[in-house]
Amino acid sequence: MARKSPETEHPVTAVGWAARDSSGVLSPFNFSRRATGDEDVMFKVLFCGICHSDLHSIKNEWGFSTYPLVPGHEIVGVVTEVGSKVKNFKIGDKVGVGCMVGSCHSCDNCTNNLENYCPQVKLTYGSTYYDGTTTHGGYSDLMVANESFVIRMPDNLPLDAGAPLLCAGITVYSPLKYYGLDKPGMHVGVVGLGGLGHVAVKFAKAFGAKVTVISTSPNKKDEAIQHLGADSFLVSHDQDQMKAALGTMDGIIDTVSAVHPLLPLLGLLTTNGKLVMVGAPDKPLELPAFPLLMGRKTIGGSMIGGIKETQEMIDFAAKHNIKAEIEVIPIDYVNTAMERLLKADVRYRFVIDIANTLKAA
Amino acid sequence: MARKSPETEHPVTAVGWAARDSSGVLSPFNFSRRATGDEDVMFKVLFCGICHSDLHSIKNEWGFSTYPLVPGHEIVGVVTEVGSKVKNFKIGDKVGVGCMVGSCHSCDNCTNNLENYCPQVKLTYGSTYYDGTTTHGGYSDLMVANESFVIRMPDNLPLDAGAPLLCAGITVYSPLKYYGLDKPGMHVGVVGLGGLGHVAVKFAKAFGAKVTVISTSPNKKDEAIQHLGADSFLVSHDQDQMKAALGTMDGIIDTVSAVHPLLPLLGLLTTNGKLVMVGAPDKPLELPAFPLLMGRKTIGGSMIGGIKETQEMIDFAAKHNIKAEIEVIPIDYVNTAMERLLKADVRYRFVIDIANTLKAA
Repeated sequence: MARKSPETEHPVTAVGWAARDSSGVLSPFNFSRRATGDEDVMFKVLFCGICHSDLHSIKNEWGFSTYPLVPGHEIVGVVTEVGSKVKNFKIGDKVGVGCMVGSCHSCDNCTNNLENYCPQVKLTYGSTYYDGTTTHGGYSDLMVANESFVIRMPDNLPLDAGAPLLCAGITVYSPLKYYGLDKPGMHVGVVGLGGLGHVAVKFAKAFGAKVTVISTSPNKKDEAIQHLGADSFLVSHDQDQMKAALGTMDGIIDTVSAVHPLLPLLGLLTTNGKLVMVGAPDKPLELPAFPLLMGRKTIGGSMIGGIKETQEMIDFAAKHNIKAEIEVIPIDYVNTAMERLLKADVRYRFVIDIANTLKAA
Repeated sequence: MARKSPETEHPVTAVGWAARDSSGVLSPFNFSRRATGDEDVMFKVLFCGICHSDLHSIKNEWGFSTYPLVPGHEIVGVVTEVGSKVKNFKIGDKVGVGCMVGSCHSCDNCTNNLENYCPQVKLTYGSTYYDGTTTHGGYSDLMVANESFVIRMPDNLPLDAGAPLLCAGITVYSPLKYYGLDKPGMHVGVVGLGGLGHVAVKFAKAFGAKVTVISTSPNKKDEAIQHLGADSFLVSHDQDQMKAALGTMDGIIDTVSAVHPLLPLLGLLTTNGKLVMVGAPDKPLELPAFPLLMGRKTIGGSMIGGIKETQEMIDFAAKHNIKAEIEVIPIDYVNTAMERLLKADVRYRFVIDIANTLKAA
């Protein structure tokens, strides 16, 4: 049987921007979405954040991309249709979809609300869905997802600045909780002040922590302290500053996805301190064992979060007025945005205004 | 003021075996111990275990050894004198001293019964004590220590086979507890079947875990399962065995102190699994970040344990009939023992019969 084209494989016409190969260039793309199933929520996409993963994916830097590829997993919009068995959403609701649209619902991870660690997880784009078609992300006018993977967006959270929380937000919120760094009075370090780091500062502050930003760029100090609310700032290559901070931090959220030395960060931790990596360098890092032993320190990882916790995070953000700092762009700026993202030239997250700028070809 | 000699700096005559330089050879040594202070317990040493750290120290492999150096921090004996303010011990009590003989008692670590992580910790040998003299370990006929650092040895725990628990035992017991690997039904891996590993198997079994030994030596399988009570055995270079065990372990106690790959061990862990290093390779290991993120796994360290927990461990061992597997040797065999230890030619711990073989010169 001949495989149907993206444009005809499903009944609902959709339009988006897609990468066609690893050159990294996105261009308009006509495709289709499945009809709203019994448990599905269909929604009109209003905004979609640009995550650094999108850039890795369109360039196939992780080696598992397939094309055409419609990126985007920080997707928000308004419900236009719900399936007959949908319980929690109705037409007109403001909703979001993050990094996942499916999981097995039966493994230990799923049973424990950790669908993000399910071996059968279906990613929002680039996964093969249950019907055999490839999932497509939020750089598109329309989205459909099983309601189990749909997040309710609270009324008082702006949709544009709320969108990045669906990936960047949960990526830092979940480890702050899991690694016990959500207690008032703790001292939390945040390494790297980009899309992840800037919301890590906000969540850690909302949990009542003292927050120190650790960065290679001295010129981010004012921004970190005056604008984002960090309590202090360390330039990572300033030996005196780093030495003065030795042994002071209960935990560090390390958002850097380039290879970097861990030893100086481990030195900042107290006994029992936790260094949590949420960026994923593609080459191994150097792990010195002595500092782990001498202070019972740990290095852990974390990857987004489960759906239940994502909803909790979104509700927490709404309650505490936590939003991403964003630059809203039209869809036809997306290739320029990717170039700027590569240079870290954004404060701090691009969000595509899908509804007003993406038109059917 | 001229510094007094080891033989005359204190009033109490003592004899031991010491390293005089980094050649690694031990020889008889006349020195002295302080008089029993108000809070001190003096005891006749009966047995002392040989820890791999002793070998590192006499050869100055960690770079901070001073000579002459009397090793030994798995020391047991019988109390011969107690100071006027000693509350918990009396003459004739069976006691032990592990790796520490002093700490500041005021830092956060000390306050939380983690003297082992106190920055001012006084090690049993090679530290400068409060009186300015160098501490000397248990390869000697006599020991004196502040009662805060003295462990009560239960009547039903043989002193020779109990001695190694004061270092090797607490080194594995403490992380099993701290990292939550002490729950019945858990699957715990133990990497390396030496002095630390063999007692790790016993403690993990006593906690009710399923225990798998992971080793480079296929010929240790029978010993691990039939003699030590492990449930299963993995040869670390057998790809099929390792693959079949992927994602099955809640935690791994890694006792290997040589540089070794972490990736295969991380692969054995479940989501949230914990790889705990208690050996200290002197060069950095390669840390792949992706496996940490993909399963929220952690790599942690641990170093011996606090005094309260050491007493708890000894009492637990006595209750559950946990003893080290030992080869008892006379003191004049100690240099040969060190050579054999270097080749891992011991099952599993040498213990020196001090009382019967160490005579005044």
